[in-house]
Amino acid sequence: MPTFKITVAYDGGPFVGWQRQTNGPSVQGLIEDALRTLDDRDVTVHGAGRTDAGVHALGQVASFTLRRDITAAVVQKALNNHLPDAVRIVSAEDAPASFHARFGAKSKMYRYRIWNADVASPFQQSYAWFVRGPLAFEAMQAAARPLEGRHDFAAFQAADGTQRTTEREVFASRLVAEADDSGVPGRSSGRLITYEISGSGFLRHMVRAIAGSLVEVGSGRRGSEWMSEVIASRDRTGAGPTAPAHGLFLVRVDY
Amino acid sequence: MPTFKITVAYDGGPFVGWQRQTNGPSVQGLIEDALRTLDDRDVTVHGAGRTDAGVHALGQVASFTLRRDITAAVVQKALNNHLPDAVRIVSAEDAPASFHARFGAKSKMYRYRIWNADVASPFQQSYAWFVRGPLAFEAMQAAARPLEGRHDFAAFQAADGTQRTTEREVFASRLVAEADDSGVPGRSSGRLITYEISGSGFLRHMVRAIAGSLVEVGSGRRGSEWMSEVIASRDRTGAGPTAPAHGLFLVRVDY
Repeated sequence: MPTFKITVAYDGGPFVGWQRQTNGPSVQGLIEDALRTLDDRDVTVHGAGRTDAGVHALGQVASFTLRRDITAAVVQKALNNHLPDAVRIVSAEDAPASFHARFGAKSKMYRYRIWNADVASPFQQSYAWFVRGPLAFEAMQAAARPLEGRHDFAAFQAADGTQRTTEREVFASRLVAEADDSGVPGRSSGRLITYEISGSGFLRHMVRAIAGSLVEVGSGRRGSEWMSEVIASRDRTGAGPTAPAHGLFLVRVDY
Repeated sequence: MPTFKITVAYDGGPFVGWQRQTNGPSVQGLIEDALRTLDDRDVTVHGAGRTDAGVHALGQVASFTLRRDITAAVVQKALNNHLPDAVRIVSAEDAPASFHARFGAKSKMYRYRIWNADVASPFQQSYAWFVRGPLAFEAMQAAARPLEGRHDFAAFQAADGTQRTTEREVFASRLVAEADDSGVPGRSSGRLITYEISGSGFLRHMVRAIAGSLVEVGSGRRGSEWMSEVIASRDRTGAGPTAPAHGLFLVRVDY
């Protein structure tokens, strides 16, 4: 009964999210379907993060146990043969029987991408939030910092959030990159602003609500000190709008 | 009768190419259809480069003349309102009546992207050629250099190429970047190798035949000195295979 840890990249566009649901194809569902063929029985796959519909992953981690005695390399190959191109098993490795991708996760990192330009980009439309008009990068950077540390993040929870405790620890919260589309000097037709956050765990819609709030600051509708006030308020109605799902990437999970 | 110069970005995936054809939607056709609505008559749009089916553009340039006396800003807005998301007018400007996007072009730059990894990437599948197995970056770099200068590029012409002269000048030919997918140190699941070439003009399939030849060198099937031999041979059957269209981007056109 070998247990495996797999790292999964997926384009969230075609899916109802990570978690198996009745209303459409899910990443978990596709992997479980492929494993059922491989193991001749139902297999439950545990994912580290339940990404919402449209959210992408570069390094989602999942775990499962099979009855068949096969190697990680064979599991990876068989899954990639079964799965659509939008889902790829980047790596597969043996794991102890006790390994559980969700309960064992110590840290997760998400990235939120903003395409800031006058004109939308055909290449960013599915992978970044298009925000028109100037954004003040430095003000956004200053607003991102106070999120670091242990806080009650109730202000950034989904309206229908049901988590018992809304306290989480954020290890790093920063704007990491700012690049133009073409990479050709003097030919910048827009810029990509990337926000990166890592932490012990995240509330539902938390990163998207933070991204929406950062854009409130970047656009000048709020000052950068406002972010600390929002955290302190613990009031979801006080924060910015929830940014669209297609700008969000689950980058990595650490154990 | 104002004349305009527009810069166009498009995802080549859904199109039969730049040029209007009877077998499906083209970028030129979509722009001409939109201009017909705007100008109440047929308008011919001249593109700097006739990109093939599936080839992308960050900065294709096109020109046309309208009967209506409107500003470049209005033309840009009207076109972007009419066009699908996969085609965006990045900029529009007034041009002299004599301006012709194709005949006036002094230099074009193309980029060819190679996703080099053991596993395909959901995010690169439409925008890079997936090449499995190690590629020798330095050998490819060395092979790219001799293309610079004025040469007869007959060896890199499409099999059905009909151009009268196959001599062209290449201003720069180099591998410009090598980046991993995630940008997270120690978590590289593959790398992106980008080849950039600028020149006075290009034969049909020329950049893709060069990219295919560079991969022959990178994979070790050929030495880096082989590229000079291929150029000298002027024989298409001696060069590497034509790399797939979806890895190619027309980056910019200069006048």
